[in-house]
Amino acid sequence: MQRRDFMKTAAVAGAGAATAAVAAPALAQARKDMVIVSSWPRDFPGLGTSAQRLAARITEVSQGVIQTKYFAAGERVGGFDVFDEVASGNSQAYVSAEYYWKGKHPAFAFFTAVPFGMTTIEWNAWIKFLGGQALWDELSGSFGLKCLPAGATGTQMGGWFNKEINSADDLKGLKMRIPGLGGDVMAKLGASPVSLPGGQIYENLVSGAIEATEWVGPYNDYFMKFYEAAKYYYYPGFHEPGGGVCVGMNASWWGSLSNYEQAVITACCMEEHAAQYEEAQANNGAYLARLINDHGVQLKEFSEDVYEAFGEASAAVYDETRQHSALANKVTDAFMKTLREVGGWQKIAEVAFSNRRNEALDI
Amino acid sequence: MQRRDFMKTAAVAGAGAATAAVAAPALAQARKDMVIVSSWPRDFPGLGTSAQRLAARITEVSQGVIQTKYFAAGERVGGFDVFDEVASGNSQAYVSAEYYWKGKHPAFAFFTAVPFGMTTIEWNAWIKFLGGQALWDELSGSFGLKCLPAGATGTQMGGWFNKEINSADDLKGLKMRIPGLGGDVMAKLGASPVSLPGGQIYENLVSGAIEATEWVGPYNDYFMKFYEAAKYYYYPGFHEPGGGVCVGMNASWWGSLSNYEQAVITACCMEEHAAQYEEAQANNGAYLARLINDHGVQLKEFSEDVYEAFGEASAAVYDETRQHSALANKVTDAFMKTLREVGGWQKIAEVAFSNRRNEALDI
Repeated sequence: MQRRDFMKTAAVAGAGAATAAVAAPALAQARKDMVIVSSWPRDFPGLGTSAQRLAARITEVSQGVIQTKYFAAGERVGGFDVFDEVASGNSQAYVSAEYYWKGKHPAFAFFTAVPFGMTTIEWNAWIKFLGGQALWDELSGSFGLKCLPAGATGTQMGGWFNKEINSADDLKGLKMRIPGLGGDVMAKLGASPVSLPGGQIYENLVSGAIEATEWVGPYNDYFMKFYEAAKYYYYPGFHEPGGGVCVGMNASWWGSLSNYEQAVITACCMEEHAAQYEEAQANNGAYLARLINDHGVQLKEFSEDVYEAFGEASAAVYDETRQHSALANKVTDAFMKTLREVGGWQKIAEVAFSNRRNEALDI
Repeated sequence: MQRRDFMKTAAVAGAGAATAAVAAPALAQARKDMVIVSSWPRDFPGLGTSAQRLAARITEVSQGVIQTKYFAAGERVGGFDVFDEVASGNSQAYVSAEYYWKGKHPAFAFFTAVPFGMTTIEWNAWIKFLGGQALWDELSGSFGLKCLPAGATGTQMGGWFNKEINSADDLKGLKMRIPGLGGDVMAKLGASPVSLPGGQIYENLVSGAIEATEWVGPYNDYFMKFYEAAKYYYYPGFHEPGGGVCVGMNASWWGSLSNYEQAVITACCMEEHAAQYEEAQANNGAYLARLINDHGVQLKEFSEDVYEAFGEASAAVYDETRQHSALANKVTDAFMKTLREVGGWQKIAEVAFSNRRNEALDI
């Protein structure tokens, strides 16, 4: 390790001109195994490649002290089995999206994305600086887990539909893959929402078992080939405006780590949390153009009528979520307070500027 | 170092139940000194505290291999002298904003923020995933420097004025602190722009040497007490929609680091790049409320007429920048291409959603 640098510095020290001190010999440091199980398919562009990059980075930045071993969905456990795998201590960490666990506790949805909720910028401010992480710790801790943000998609597209959605009536009876509280909103509007892991959506859409699906945005969606069965691609998504994914670790294992080891994992998660989001923003525009130009996809904006229906149904879903438990109510309160405060700021900053600039530059 | 963990694992290994292998004794690793000089005052909320946090983090995440020593503006060299200090090799790194060096090369402005340019989200996508870093390396490299993003303010406020700005005519003759290409735009509109380090703005505003100033946003600006001399606080800023700050390192020193050491510095810079931005977003709303409620600040929106004038003058400044050199032209081209591509995507994602949500929730 670092032999070349060590020798170079030692030589300088020998010449009496050292500016860098030679450290006392480091104690042999125990390696820690960190088995990571994921909800994403192997090499899956965006979500999967990001998770794999994070696993490699933790080993690199810890100089091998933390030895990660990454298993994609199905390689060790199924995509939706990662929570129990890690809570039980069989593996040390999962990469997934917390809203998959809303059946265990509905407040988990707030730690991925919720209808009419925060954008990624706003959500990050909440998690890191306005108390969101402490609430997440309280929720996850009750299941024996410790979570950190480790990726984000940004505001998602509204989804792929095999027919036009001109009014809220067109949603009635619609069989759609849409997880989280977004699915509950769709149910209120008469649709039949289902939750499927990423690897199973395409076959269900092509077979007609579902008629619509949301996934992420153009970059992630392109490789799913949903356009073969559904040509209408709607925006803006109401259901996942933020879209944070995370690393969920076994809480006892996390507690056994040194401050140094925790710092390395945290720094790497934060680096990747930003990078996954930015990579999607970098690619979405170009992939949207490909979908439209090469595959005949029709880009559609949800009408005001449809959006109003989404809004009313979302309010009802929030009410139900609050009634689940004191913790669900507390998380909802905190989330909405931050949404209004940070969202109110963003309205006169990024959003106001973007509206003005786009008009000036005809974007 | 990590003695407790080592002993714990060694004991387990002795019991024949080790799951973590004990590493071969690490070679004594040379410590590297990293003297960081900053353009920000000591403990300055936002920019300064973020830079200090980053310096401490690099030492923590490298487990002491990289020994950082941080000097705020004036503690070792002046706030605007950090570039030459690091290019000469006297110090290893600076924390600053690249647009302060537009006198050395106008293309530096694109690596902080430019009028009608990219937001932080868009700029990050450019730097990390669409070739921005390579152009930055080309520019900085010609001065013997290697830079990485290490903080961002987000879309800034338009600034503090001691009178209302009702039309572009009100800008004529205005003495305003505004650096970067934004200052050049103001000059085109008949104002007299000056560039001053953060620590000197307040005294100049109070004395009347300047009549207006921009700085950052409510959280950063609050502590500057500009409201004592200028009550009108305008939005949205046209001049710094992104606002990335950076760590600029001596290129020879950077090249002498091992891959591991470079990875640690990069991961820490990316972590802080996100955190500084998010901390500002977390605080801006609350501090804006304080400015209005406690200090009688009047929040004002630039009129369409004034914004149109900003737009026309900005187009002229872009033309002049392109004419400086082939590199300035290349950077401008690349910047504008990404702005249209990623900005076009953001328009139907974060921006479209935020507009719809804010209407639905009356934000």
